[in-house]
Order: sequence, then structure tokens, then C-alpha cells
Amino acid sequence: MAVQKDFSVDCVVFGYHEDELKVLLIEQRMPETSAGKEKRYALPGDLVQDNEDLDDSASRVLKELTSVELENAYLKQFYTFGNPKRVKGLRDQQWLRSFRQDPDARVITVAYYSLVKMEDYNPVAASFASETVWMNVDEVPALAFDHNTIFDKALATLREKIKYYPIGFHLLPKKFTLSQLQHLNEVISGEELDKRNFRRKVQKLPYIIPLEEKQKGVFHKPARLHVYDERFKE
Amino acid sequence: MAVQKDFSVDCVVFGYHEDELKVLLIEQRMPETSAGKEKRYALPGDLVQDNEDLDDSASRVLKELTSVELENAYLKQFYTFGNPKRVKGLRDQQWLRSFRQDPDARVITVAYYSLVKMEDYNPVAASFASETVWMNVDEVPALAFDHNTIFDKALATLREKIKYYPIGFHLLPKKFTLSQLQHLNEVISGEELDKRNFRRKVQKLPYIIPLEEKQKGVFHKPARLHVYDERFKE
Repeated sequence: MAVQKDFSVDCVVFGYHEDELKVLLIEQRMPETSAGKEKRYALPGDLVQDNEDLDDSASRVLKELTSVELENAYLKQFYTFGNPKRVKGLRDQQWLRSFRQDPDARVITVAYYSLVKMEDYNPVAASFASETVWMNVDEVPALAFDHNTIFDKALATLREKIKYYPIGFHLLPKKFTLSQLQHLNEVISGEELDKRNFRRKVQKLPYIIPLEEKQKGVFHKPARLHVYDERFKE
Repeated sequence: MAVQKDFSVDCVVFGYHEDELKVLLIEQRMPETSAGKEKRYALPGDLVQDNEDLDDSASRVLKELTSVELENAYLKQFYTFGNPKRVKGLRDQQWLRSFRQDPDARVITVAYYSLVKMEDYNPVAASFASETVWMNVDEVPALAFDHNTIFDKALATLREKIKYYPIGFHLLPKKFTLSQLQHLNEVISGEELDKRNFRRKVQKLPYIIPLEEKQKGVFHKPARLHVYDERFKE
């Protein structure tokens, strides 16, 4: 008999706050009979419903599992993962046998990533998530299924993207200093950047506008504030 | 009962030859009972096999339907299409009822695009393709399923990509003139480019190397030849 097939969506929500880049994880509710007792984290994800479009599914999943409603937020499909063995690990199978009707199905997953200012969102666990946590991107533990592969690909996508697109739109305060912008680039690229070269490059970017206004509440050399040009917003 | 689900891959193969950008289509073999008699084109695509990885599936499909073996070629996943109604058109259903075991299944498709020099490939129709054709990208007719949507997204992806990446690697001759490079950019972007601005930009690109060598067999002002820096090849 042919293998049963199904599809899911998984969401990599990147959050930025006070110079730190984090990813939103859920703690999976594990069955009593589970082999391991340690906590087990996963990306928020679930099966796509019968008449549901993929984008709608990604929004629904985030709302159901983490109570996060990303209205008008940046939530983009970036890659689909279909390794035939991607849900066949021992603990994956234990979880699937407790929570899914057809644990033997081959599931391919369409992955989305999102960029949010952490202060705008207050995730609350629900459904088969027993907890939600913002995890520093450098400290992501072993995740369920192939979710480490998905997370790595999302971060690599972000690293490529920040070279050419104003993704800070979704992560920085409305008015920001060039130091804040440089730090965002450093955190995402994982590399320290030379201040002078960075500023030279930024001056050539059409979408970053310097303001007359300067930082407030800073005593020593307040820095000039900048905004993104809304016309370049994705 | 839950809807049956399945997944497929579809391939958008872009070919370039003598300043023209084309896409590889197959003519679908239609059942005798088909409502329409006119030819019906589709992107090369098929269901993913039970133990097959998605990338392998895309290569296999191209080989089976068009006899094109893209060894070491540029074949990249770019988007997944999952509209619940994407295979529900009248002629789509007629075709599915003749050629598929479960024509009512909901099928999501993982789409790939590829870039080839047309002279390197000689597609030959096989399996349920009754013909293969290189169609100019401006003259793509109404295709089966949601293949026009997939093609449009592939072309849009290419348009974004050529802004920042040396995709001409896969499309231009090994040694090329700046006129050839400009024309490639124009064909893909669908816009005429100013020669002087274009050359100024190209000079700043780290991956295009001018040679001492000039065009041969040209009597009037032979142009300088260029190559791509292999280190930047994707």
C-alpha cells in the first residue's frame, strides 16, 4: 500500500529586543509514556487543515499554539522540507502516536519565517504547547523532528536577506541610531563589522533616511536618529 | 473522511540562447474523452515517490519527462504552492482521472527552477509528455493546473535574484561581452537599461572579470570579453 502523506507548516519567529536576536519555541507536551523526561522544544507548527491555504495555516498555527496574532506582520514562506525520515526519530514517533491520527504518514513541512519586535508580542502557550519561550539564537537546543535543520535554514535565509533588504524595518524601533542598525547586522550575520565601512555602506542605501533629531536621555554625544523609507517596506 | 493528500514537484527550466529567454514546457498527453482538442501545455512535474527526497524528485521528473539530465546544474527549490483548489479545473480533473490513482487528492507542489544554456540540452518528450517545447517567456499560453502562477513566481524570483547574484554564470557563454550581459539583464527584468549606468554598476561587481581578450570574427570594434569569477558561483 502506498505511504500515507500529509503536510504541515512550521514557523520560525525571530524576535529582536535590546540588541538580542531570539527565536520563539514551544515546549512540546509529551505523553506520560515518553522515554525521556527532559523538556523538549519545537518550532510552532501543525498539520495543514483540509481546505486551508498554506499562508492561512501558518498564521493559524501561531495563533493557536502561542496566542501570537501576526496581523500585517512579516510572515513569509521560505523553504519546504521533505526528507522521508524527517519525523521518524524515537521521541518524534512517541509524540506522533499520542497526538496524531496517522503517525506513520510521511509529512512534508512548508516553513515560514517571521520578524517581530519582541516588545509587541506576548506569546502564551496553548494546545499541545505547554510553554513558549524566546530562546537566544546562539542557544537553541536539540529540537523535535528536523526543526534544527529548519531553524538553521531560516537563519541562513535571514543572513542572505539582510545583505540586500531593509529587514530592520520589522525589528528596530521606528527611529534608530546607526549603532543600533550595525548591531542588528552583527547579530544576524554573526560577524563583527567595521564601523567606518558599515557607515559608508549605509550612506549608499536608498531606504535609510537620516533625521535632524538626535537621541534623547543620553548625556555624552547623543547620536543622530534614522528612519526607514516606508516606500521600501516589504 | 479526511481529504487524501499528496505532493508533487514542478520544474521551471529557464533556457537562454541567442539573446532569448525561454521556458521548457511539455505538451500533456490528454485522454481521448477530453473536452478540449487544443494542445495543452504544462511545466514538467510529477508526484513525489514514497521514499524520495524532494530534490531527487525534481531531477528525476525532468529526466523522465524531458530526458534532460541536469547533472551539477542549477536546480533550486523556490516556492511551494498549496491552494486547495489548484488541481480542480475541468480539464485538470479529466487529466487526473486518466493518469492518477487518486484524482481527488489535494496535492501541494514544491516548485524548482533551473537555469541552462539551451545549446547544452536537447529535451525529448517521454512518459505522459507527448512533446517538449522551449517557449519564449513572453508567449507562455494558458497552462495546466496553477502552472501559470508557478511560472510567474519563478520569473519574479529570477528578476529579484539577478539584481544581486551572478546568475548569468549558468546562462551566458563562458566568455561574454558586456552587451551580452546587459541583454540578459534586460530580457530577465523586462526593462531596457541605460548602457552607461549598466556598465558603471558592472564595474563594481566583484564577480565579473575583464579579460585582455576581445571578440573574434567581428570586423567593427570587437568588444572586450569578460568571465565570471568561479569563486562566486552558486
